Amino acid sequence: MSPKTLAKVMEAVESLGYTPNFNARAMAAKQSHTIGAIIPTMENAIFARGLQAFQEKLLEKGYNLLVSSSAYQPKLEAQQIRELVARGADGLLLIGYERDEAVYEYLARRGIPTVLAWASIPDSEHASVGFDNRAAMRLLADKVIDMGHRQIAVISGILDGNDRAAERLAGIQDSWQAHGFHLNDLPIIQTPYETESGAAAFEQLVQADVKPTVIMCGNDVLAAGVISKARDLGFNVPDDISVTGFDDIELAKHVFPALTTVHVPHRQMGRVAAESLIDLIENRVEKVSHQLDISIEMRASLQRL
Amino acid sequence: MSPKTLAKVMEAVESLGYTPNFNARAMAAKQSHTIGAIIPTMENAIFARGLQAFQEKLLEKGYNLLVSSSAYQPKLEAQQIRELVARGADGLLLIGYERDEAVYEYLARRGIPTVLAWASIPDSEHASVGFDNRAAMRLLADKVIDMGHRQIAVISGILDGNDRAAERLAGIQDSWQAHGFHLNDLPIIQTPYETESGAAAFEQLVQADVKPTVIMCGNDVLAAGVISKARDLGFNVPDDISVTGFDDIELAKHVFPALTTVHVPHRQMGRVAAESLIDLIENRVEKVSHQLDISIEMRASLQRL
Repeated sequence: MSPKTLAKVMEAVESLGYTPNFNARAMAAKQSHTIGAIIPTMENAIFARGLQAFQEKLLEKGYNLLVSSSAYQPKLEAQQIRELVARGADGLLLIGYERDEAVYEYLARRGIPTVLAWASIPDSEHASVGFDNRAAMRLLADKVIDMGHRQIAVISGILDGNDRAAERLAGIQDSWQAHGFHLNDLPIIQTPYETESGAAAFEQLVQADVKPTVIMCGNDVLAAGVISKARDLGFNVPDDISVTGFDDIELAKHVFPALTTVHVPHRQMGRVAAESLIDLIENRVEKVSHQLDISIEMRASLQRL
Repeated sequence: MSPKTLAKVMEAVESLGYTPNFNARAMAAKQSHTIGAIIPTMENAIFARGLQAFQEKLLEKGYNLLVSSSAYQPKLEAQQIRELVARGADGLLLIGYERDEAVYEYLARRGIPTVLAWASIPDSEHASVGFDNRAAMRLLADKVIDMGHRQIAVISGILDGNDRAAERLAGIQDSWQAHGFHLNDLPIIQTPYETESGAAAFEQLVQADVKPTVIMCGNDVLAAGVISKARDLGFNVPDDISVTGFDDIELAKHVFPALTTVHVPHRQMGRVAAESLIDLIENRVEKVSHQLDISIEMRASLQRL
């Protein structure tokens, strides 16, 4: 093409609202070498460490990362998925598996390699890198009950649209019932993953006629709020009441007493998710699921009764 | 155009590596209604709350947010700026002001509205929303010295490429010298913003012949590491040694004893930054700088000597 013709084409293209792809390599390979990740929240550190490791591995492999936060709103997540695809993302990292089937259909139709993290769904049509939230929480609940606790109260995240929260609660219920107790005797408060919500839920739970001997929290953020509020109200943790969390984020080690929690291998999950996604993008493998091992981190906030 | 011609044009356009812009509004207005933000790290919660507020305000105004993390590497940040611009960002949020002049020239040449946050530079050619890190830290240091402390040790973030860290250290030095002390008598350790680094620096500082009576940390993450390590080593905070932080992130309230720190108005900063950036994009205003007020949050980790 002559420069003049090219200019005319560019003008026409521009007026149609088309924008050039990022670089020559992207144009040649039809790859942008950009990955999108959508996490439910940036407000606390739940996803921070895993995402950082995800990005480090991506950079090592020559991919950039763009992150969006959906504020735990499925509609916003669906919109952000389309936005990232429209901006040329080669692949996506999403958290958990529970979402409208139309979203998965859209991703399949557009052929966007996608890895689901923070959850594990073997035998699924989706690639995932994570762990079994239900089995992990059941392991912790078994330990709590084995240590003599019979008055358990649960502070759960909001279950609606959050498969991780729902699985964790189910894990406690599995253990509770397996030990011969009734679900009616297991008080549960659902509340957003914020320290203030954990604190408020604790205040409510300890006003019950039969006081809990342990508060099992859906994550460490809720548990940190419980521990601080317990201190403010004059409770000694763990002498008066035990507390457990989930995730083993930084906060868990630095509250006092340190928090007994489910240790999630955040960095490993981030790294493996990056490798899996790149493998999918570069067509080296079929969809696979990686189920990572969790462990129970016993610290001072949980005491034998 | 007939469907057939349109299909041919689309095919040609596609083969040239062009991708359609996101939506009709973007096509009409030549705006993508997407904002890019580049933060130095996602690993800890330093930027989390401000960024969340930034996104909430953007969503309210009809803009999406894409976030990158530069791992405190100026070269990576420069690359991510180009990446976000290439992906059609209408404007950018960057942290701090210290960066290669070529980056600012690039942004000016491309006409990309940009707001610098977490710092305040009045009389600058750049729009900024933040606070005076130096004056804020000086205020805290004045308070520490007024409370009788004469053996101060500092755990600072890495100064290179981080204007906020450099300003905070300068604030302590300003106060120290204004009180008639010599900089030689002010031990300083530079270390990355991680709890483990804070813990290691603490261990080193308390081995000195003249033990510090207070450790002033460049941020709350370092201070949380110090408080936990002090407990492990048998120090009582604040009876044996006081500790201060900076930022007032969630962690500051939930360590024990709770951390005396500089309260940064994270949510306000995020909201004002979003409003300022949208004003710039929509050509409603000239570049302005918003300097927000900080305050000293006195908690139990700092004691009168």
